Amino acid sequence: MPMNSAAFFKMSYGVYIVSSRKDGQFNGQVANSVFQATSDPPTVVASINKNNLTHEFIQASRKFTVSVLAKAAPMNLIGLFGFKSGRTVNKFADVSFKMGVLEVPIVLDHTVAYMEAEVIDEKDCGTHTLFIGKIVDCEIVSDEEPMTYAYYHEVKGGKSPKNAPTYREEKKEPTAAPQTGGKMEKYTCTICGYVYDPEQGDPESGIAPGTAFEDLPDDWTCPICGADKSQFEKGG
Amino acid sequence: MPMNSAAFFKMSYGVYIVSSRKDGQFNGQVANSVFQATSDPPTVVASINKNNLTHEFIQASRKFTVSVLAKAAPMNLIGLFGFKSGRTVNKFADVSFKMGVLEVPIVLDHTVAYMEAEVIDEKDCGTHTLFIGKIVDCEIVSDEEPMTYAYYHEVKGGKSPKNAPTYREEKKEPTAAPQTGGKMEKYTCTICGYVYDPEQGDPESGIAPGTAFEDLPDDWTCPICGADKSQFEKGG
Repeated sequence: MPMNSAAFFKMSYGVYIVSSRKDGQFNGQVANSVFQATSDPPTVVASINKNNLTHEFIQASRKFTVSVLAKAAPMNLIGLFGFKSGRTVNKFADVSFKMGVLEVPIVLDHTVAYMEAEVIDEKDCGTHTLFIGKIVDCEIVSDEEPMTYAYYHEVKGGKSPKNAPTYREEKKEPTAAPQTGGKMEKYTCTICGYVYDPEQGDPESGIAPGTAFEDLPDDWTCPICGADKSQFEKGG
Repeated sequence: MPMNSAAFFKMSYGVYIVSSRKDGQFNGQVANSVFQATSDPPTVVASINKNNLTHEFIQASRKFTVSVLAKAAPMNLIGLFGFKSGRTVNKFADVSFKMGVLEVPIVLDHTVAYMEAEVIDEKDCGTHTLFIGKIVDCEIVSDEEPMTYAYYHEVKGGKSPKNAPTYREEKKEPTAAPQTGGKMEKYTCTICGYVYDPEQGDPESGIAPGTAFEDLPDDWTCPICGADKSQFEKGG
């Protein structure tokens, strides 16, 4: 009997941006597998995919920061840090951040709290490395409620990128019956799995509820991963 | 400037019971620092205090299970597994559990989902060990909502035991003014920090709201850690 890996989705996480630097360059990525390992001294552990640029930066500088995202963090912030690569985009160009005591950037946009960590140890876990960081500074930034991974998935409709520890391939459910004429159809991003629902529109990008996919402006892009309209296919 | 360690409390976790065995004995403990480290193969990492009996059992058997607790899990279940030691209590005497494929017990009371893991690696983190477990089986047990650590703290009034990665010493706030006569006073458990609030009573133990601490039966015990009334002190 195959195991029911949906069980993993009952585990609870926050949504974090883990940032680092290498020489003069900054990068960061969304992570959910981050926890406190010990309280004395305070340490956090983050599981980071070896293919990610942030992994390379942490290995080089031995430093990282963790920004705890607020429930209200918009999808385009999560998309920028979670679905785009720092190899092609400067993720820090349009977000507010500050330099911490470790001289590593700390994302402040929609951040509830942050920690700065020096890597004191690491553990190879196959596709990922566990970076064990001793906290050298931390602060609360706002009283907003933190975002949970469940909220991101269930309420915001967010997906997990392939490099995430919690990634799972989504099997398409065959549609039971063709939709009847006149009803606007959903479209799904083939890159990240985001579903454009005309009933909801994409208010964060200025698209009002009730806008058909066909009526989206040509320069509209996926709010999660930035893919253009041609990357979408009918259904959702 | 000292760092504001309250920032750690903005991180999100679930509430889990991690169980193991040694020879014919079973033990388990509450843990929150558990996450998925990789998806291929699926692995979970748990941070377990070296002083805990569960640590000894996992090191001996190289196996553990993780039960994801439901939001509705009662405080006495969390108290039994989180604040009592398997050295003095058989925690499995009065809970429902089953043996998994690894022949390690899986707590089923108020469990949403579970995983069975074989330890493939571990990492010394000072006071704690990170056990890296490859999942050999997992299943969803109920559709109930999982409990989050935030819910446990904020809604249930739960505390963290000293051995928890997320433990912090609570500083007592001096009471602003003595309570006026007639109002029933709160009492705090000096063992685990649980606050008995007469306005709420302790319905899980059959104590109705509006019951003064002085009127609790002599055999009433702390619903979290099982301490008796003499371990309580005025204030909360």
